[in-house]
Amino acid sequence: MIETPYLLFLGDAPDMLAAKVAIGIRDWRPEHAVGQISLPGCGADLGLTEMTLQEALDAGAKTLVIGVANRGGLISPAWKEVLVKALELGFDIASGLHNLLRDEAELVAAAQANGRTLHDVRVPTVNYPIANGVKRSGKRCLAVGTDCSVGKMYTALAMDKEMQARGMKSSFRATGQTGILITGDGVPLDAVIADFMAGSIEYLTPDNDEDHWDLIEGQGSLFHVSYSGVTMALVHGGQPDALILCHEPTRSHMRGLPDYDVPTLEELRDVALPLAQRANKACQVVGVSVNTQHLSEEEAVAYLKEVEDRMGLPAVDPYRHGAGRLVDALAAL
Amino acid sequence: MIETPYLLFLGDAPDMLAAKVAIGIRDWRPEHAVGQISLPGCGADLGLTEMTLQEALDAGAKTLVIGVANRGGLISPAWKEVLVKALELGFDIASGLHNLLRDEAELVAAAQANGRTLHDVRVPTVNYPIANGVKRSGKRCLAVGTDCSVGKMYTALAMDKEMQARGMKSSFRATGQTGILITGDGVPLDAVIADFMAGSIEYLTPDNDEDHWDLIEGQGSLFHVSYSGVTMALVHGGQPDALILCHEPTRSHMRGLPDYDVPTLEELRDVALPLAQRANKACQVVGVSVNTQHLSEEEAVAYLKEVEDRMGLPAVDPYRHGAGRLVDALAAL
Repeated sequence: MIETPYLLFLGDAPDMLAAKVAIGIRDWRPEHAVGQISLPGCGADLGLTEMTLQEALDAGAKTLVIGVANRGGLISPAWKEVLVKALELGFDIASGLHNLLRDEAELVAAAQANGRTLHDVRVPTVNYPIANGVKRSGKRCLAVGTDCSVGKMYTALAMDKEMQARGMKSSFRATGQTGILITGDGVPLDAVIADFMAGSIEYLTPDNDEDHWDLIEGQGSLFHVSYSGVTMALVHGGQPDALILCHEPTRSHMRGLPDYDVPTLEELRDVALPLAQRANKACQVVGVSVNTQHLSEEEAVAYLKEVEDRMGLPAVDPYRHGAGRLVDALAAL
Repeated sequence: MIETPYLLFLGDAPDMLAAKVAIGIRDWRPEHAVGQISLPGCGADLGLTEMTLQEALDAGAKTLVIGVANRGGLISPAWKEVLVKALELGFDIASGLHNLLRDEAELVAAAQANGRTLHDVRVPTVNYPIANGVKRSGKRCLAVGTDCSVGKMYTALAMDKEMQARGMKSSFRATGQTGILITGDGVPLDAVIADFMAGSIEYLTPDNDEDHWDLIEGQGSLFHVSYSGVTMALVHGGQPDALILCHEPTRSHMRGLPDYDVPTLEELRDVALPLAQRANKACQVVGVSVNTQHLSEEEAVAYLKEVEDRMGLPAVDPYRHGAGRLVDALAAL
């Protein structure tokens, strides 16, 4: 578990796109973010109070979170200066970068000298079990996508927020770096050893109250040949009671795979549901979440209506219109 | 690559079942095995010449292969004495045990002092790429199973042997510890990091002559909730042109999962083929391989005929009757 609250490090992010992690924390766990800290030339601004390290410390911050992707995969000298200073002042540091904090000798030395912790959330710290497939109590919902990066994390977070607002019992269960940094906990599934993938998801979503919902962050896609095995482990390890189908309708091919068409929502349903029912016979597809960011409001509304009529399922863009109808569908199960 | 030929170490194997790795090498690569070496109380006998370390060395052996599972997951003092002596005499050691040679200080010291190599084939030694899904030249056949441990490796090895005998171009591609020790090379797929599973299979089965067949060793089962993600990576990373369905008809439930029924061969076909066609539209199911070890000859013949009639595919037990008809089916593609 990463100690909260956080100071969000934006570094020299060229633009807002590079600050995806920081934006996620600001949007979904604003109570965890006391402020932001930037370097000269930073093109991202979260609209939080810009703070020095000392100001953030005085405001109660415990952990400096790397909220930005680094250019060229390197932790630059300019970054390192701030990170070392943060450790000296008493911050832990948390990062989801590919290159690890623990591989930087200066950071390791400063953390050791000051008794601080470096959290590389990309690296599993638990010895996960082999999945045993035993039915667990409580309910689980998994977001599955026609492709990678179509809004699965956003959908699960939005549903969790709505359920919390309604006083329902729910937990967002992070399976990727951004989700783990947002919530402070989770399984970095893409970094888990193959044999233990499904077991890590069983571990992440244990027995719970019968009226509690785990909202499991999806990864990859059953149709994405690079990552489908990871998705399969979620479908079987998660034992979902409910699937939400996620889609981005303007994509011309699978992300990173120019020769691969994006499947239809019907194809996704027809592949994902029988596979999910292998681990949980009662599993149902309960709704569709569409990322309509590249459509106008009018186009989005028309597209959602068309999907809804075609599939007989509530179809929403949770970013534009909220996750209320998806939560209604869960509540009706 | 592990240097051949081998001396096969049987240790204090309680019985032949424990010597699965050694049996595999003897059966499939007899030219790699100069002899066997046992400890007092060993209950396994491969029928090879029992040799001292020195005799094996004189016969040309380069590597001592641990051909046996160890009891309780420990490398015992009795084993260690032989292994250290082997390193001192000039052997490399290769092992697929869960507990690693490299974690044993005495073995590491002896290997370093004598300039020898410890091969822990359970641990990947390659940084595999992320799969790119690009169509590769040459042909690939993948064995998929209704369950784990139904004869997928045996099927692929038997087909490879038959194809070699016919002068066809083929390569057995190992994806598990036993297969790697048998052939000296391969991908230990269950130990690969999730994100790189499919990429490791692309790496294992690269572009080749158009009339060359990779016979890819299957792992797990799409229906086995503990390991299905591993199988999925094979189905997509392998880009198979041909699938062989593997089955063990007397199993009452999935291996290790008492609450899970074994699917029918039709269910396996109907799930595996559409998934495989995602990566290779031309993929076909070409045959059925049945492990009939728990049936009498008469029962086996009747069962195979029934499957063949029902599914319209050649159905054979390659152990009893050879892999010829499965190879005929590949050749006919």
